Amino acid sequence: MAEHSVYDLLNKKRRGGPLEAREIEFFVEGFTRGTIPDYQMSALLMAIAINGMTAEEMATLTQSMLKSGEQWHLRDSYDFIADKHSTGGVGDKVSLVLSPWVAACGVKIGMLSGRGLGHTGGTLDKLEAIPRFNARLTRAEFERAIDDAGCVISTSTEGIAPADKKIYALRDVTGTVESLPLITASIMSKKLAMGASALILDVKTGSGAFMRLYQDSKALAQSLIAAAAGSGTRVEAIITDMDRPLGVAAGNANEIVETFECLKGKGPEDVVDVTRAQGERVLVMSGRFDEASARRALDDALTSGRALEQTRTWIAAQGGDPACVDDYSLLPQPREVLEVKAPQSGVITHIDTYHAGMFTVDLGAGRKKADDVIDYAAGVMFDRRTGDEVRAGDVIARIQLGHAARDAEALVTRFLSFVKFGEDAPARPLVHEHLK
Amino acid sequence: MAEHSVYDLLNKKRRGGPLEAREIEFFVEGFTRGTIPDYQMSALLMAIAINGMTAEEMATLTQSMLKSGEQWHLRDSYDFIADKHSTGGVGDKVSLVLSPWVAACGVKIGMLSGRGLGHTGGTLDKLEAIPRFNARLTRAEFERAIDDAGCVISTSTEGIAPADKKIYALRDVTGTVESLPLITASIMSKKLAMGASALILDVKTGSGAFMRLYQDSKALAQSLIAAAAGSGTRVEAIITDMDRPLGVAAGNANEIVETFECLKGKGPEDVVDVTRAQGERVLVMSGRFDEASARRALDDALTSGRALEQTRTWIAAQGGDPACVDDYSLLPQPREVLEVKAPQSGVITHIDTYHAGMFTVDLGAGRKKADDVIDYAAGVMFDRRTGDEVRAGDVIARIQLGHAARDAEALVTRFLSFVKFGEDAPARPLVHEHLK
Repeated sequence: MAEHSVYDLLNKKRRGGPLEAREIEFFVEGFTRGTIPDYQMSALLMAIAINGMTAEEMATLTQSMLKSGEQWHLRDSYDFIADKHSTGGVGDKVSLVLSPWVAACGVKIGMLSGRGLGHTGGTLDKLEAIPRFNARLTRAEFERAIDDAGCVISTSTEGIAPADKKIYALRDVTGTVESLPLITASIMSKKLAMGASALILDVKTGSGAFMRLYQDSKALAQSLIAAAAGSGTRVEAIITDMDRPLGVAAGNANEIVETFECLKGKGPEDVVDVTRAQGERVLVMSGRFDEASARRALDDALTSGRALEQTRTWIAAQGGDPACVDDYSLLPQPREVLEVKAPQSGVITHIDTYHAGMFTVDLGAGRKKADDVIDYAAGVMFDRRTGDEVRAGDVIARIQLGHAARDAEALVTRFLSFVKFGEDAPARPLVHEHLK
Repeated sequence: MAEHSVYDLLNKKRRGGPLEAREIEFFVEGFTRGTIPDYQMSALLMAIAINGMTAEEMATLTQSMLKSGEQWHLRDSYDFIADKHSTGGVGDKVSLVLSPWVAACGVKIGMLSGRGLGHTGGTLDKLEAIPRFNARLTRAEFERAIDDAGCVISTSTEGIAPADKKIYALRDVTGTVESLPLITASIMSKKLAMGASALILDVKTGSGAFMRLYQDSKALAQSLIAAAAGSGTRVEAIITDMDRPLGVAAGNANEIVETFECLKGKGPEDVVDVTRAQGERVLVMSGRFDEASARRALDDALTSGRALEQTRTWIAAQGGDPACVDDYSLLPQPREVLEVKAPQSGVITHIDTYHAGMFTVDLGAGRKKADDVIDYAAGVMFDRRTGDEVRAGDVIARIQLGHAARDAEALVTRFLSFVKFGEDAPARPLVHEHLK
């Protein structure tokens, strides 16, 4: 494609016309190689963010980005291997519960996951609260962990979708992060580069989700599914609620404890139910189960203790200390715990989950900038939750600090600022919709 | 304004929201100083090109760009000084005729003008066909020429609107040239930096104009006027026809000859009429004439020979040889002239003026790239024009070459490809509309 094509192409997208596949490929390849400069890519990103993309353009953009790096084609190495992605939330430890649980049913699952940034927690950060757990695996180590433990969660390697890294860095500073086609291509290029047999997407909706409005969450779910068209990876999505923190624990070490409790059959019902819904889809997509047998297999893995045994095997396979499954004192412990008491009697009608997430980040459990250091012991325990009736003075939450409290009163006041009391909490389903 | 504001501002413009004055100023200043990088500016330019700007945003953008450099405030140095701008066309020598003609009526006029690029000719290129003519004046030389000759035309100096130069270079490679607010700010920042008392805009419309459609030409005229709000320069616009070449000559030396013919009272009627319409507005805007007395003064300047005498004075004031006004052999002469004969009898119904312009450029009379060298002798004489009835074999045009013809037949064939013959030429007014 000739030199002058770059601005012909920019003119075309500015006017709203769809780009051809070879035009998108030319742009992504050129930008990744460095022959197309930042200022032309940022103009294209802005044009895409404003004018949108067709489903075909999105699928091509996704493919072009994934082709910029390694393609693992894991589905060629295994009869069946599942992948899972969540759009992120507060208290979202579903990946951690799901992996050994599904593996305990005989279905392999592997994920290239991310760290937390902003109000949402990161799966890898939580895992790194486990002593010696290695979340930076090479591709060979990743595959060995699948072979040894049936499940694995690791950070994406440098070789996966380098175009996405370069494009994301530019979006971050050019006001083009909020764009359905660009979000879609960013997520799916990394997922499809791993090349699982099937992928279950957990698209969150509500005050703590990336997409707060249901219609936006659904549009994202549909867009993510559409972008995988023709990729060879079967994709389904479940839209689940993130208008309240998921489970009781939000943080890192405390979410690991909650994960183990779930795998012991003692976890909060919402975490178990959201995970079971996804596990069921993964098992059905493997072709070895129908819905009823999938549910039975999952229940059996939990009650028999096999899911918990699988958890110990998995942690050991990634270099972590499996003893922490049974001895929580081996995990980072808070230095101080502040109790939050209900200022009035009534029903907790809403916990603004975005603000709850940012509060947790400010305790040290997350990152505002990519190079912030995580305090694994910090977090929040939401002992009383949305819909619960409380009496004035009841302890409704515990704030866990990794360091000595400097201004305990201000922390408690801030916590109460995002909790609403009233007469009735609006009913919201936990699992909103299943799309495929 | 804080660091993070750059992407807040990009997000705002992406969503279509108008930017505040201080936000636009911050962006233009930062980009000109180099603290805001190209890739953020190109994202903003694309967002503006797609989402547009309000009249207030456009006026602020214009002001911010002109404030990036020198402001001459010429209206403070003279009782009245006029400026004129044309959006460009083929055979457009109006500025050359207008300047000495208006000056001969006792009204000062000065222009910072441009060179040709693409299908339109450049006023400065035409002037530089005159031996020793100096079109690169310093500000002091510019003002001295006004004092000595009452009129001056020079290239814009480095100090005028450096933000425009930097922004234009980026627009050129990011597909953001076609944007009404960006075109407006680019033109008006340079014009308002000179700071004349009044500015007459000649906005062209038709096949040889920058804006081909009448509605687009009118929108540009209105936009240019709006951008000057509060600037202290009074602005009026005349929309004139560019669906046929203006006058008989298109090129450089041949347009200088036609200019002198006009000032001798022997010029083609269309050139004289379009120039007179603008001269009348300039004289009226000076406050010293009403419409009737302006028309009389212009006619008198022409018939008395004062306009021609003023032309000699002006050329001398800018270092050129005034003898060429009377002896055209002092101007660059074509080495070879090819006659184009009508292939059929009938009426010339259309000469596609964009293609006529590109043809003239390819002869060497203009530039495709900024560093192309001009052949001042090259050009076209449209001896028979749109609406003229011709017989097969009549000479309808002469192609003037600065060098020996290599493929005369191909040139003639190409010329005829943009000339249409038929029964009736559609009537189009020469002066479409006057806006203020």
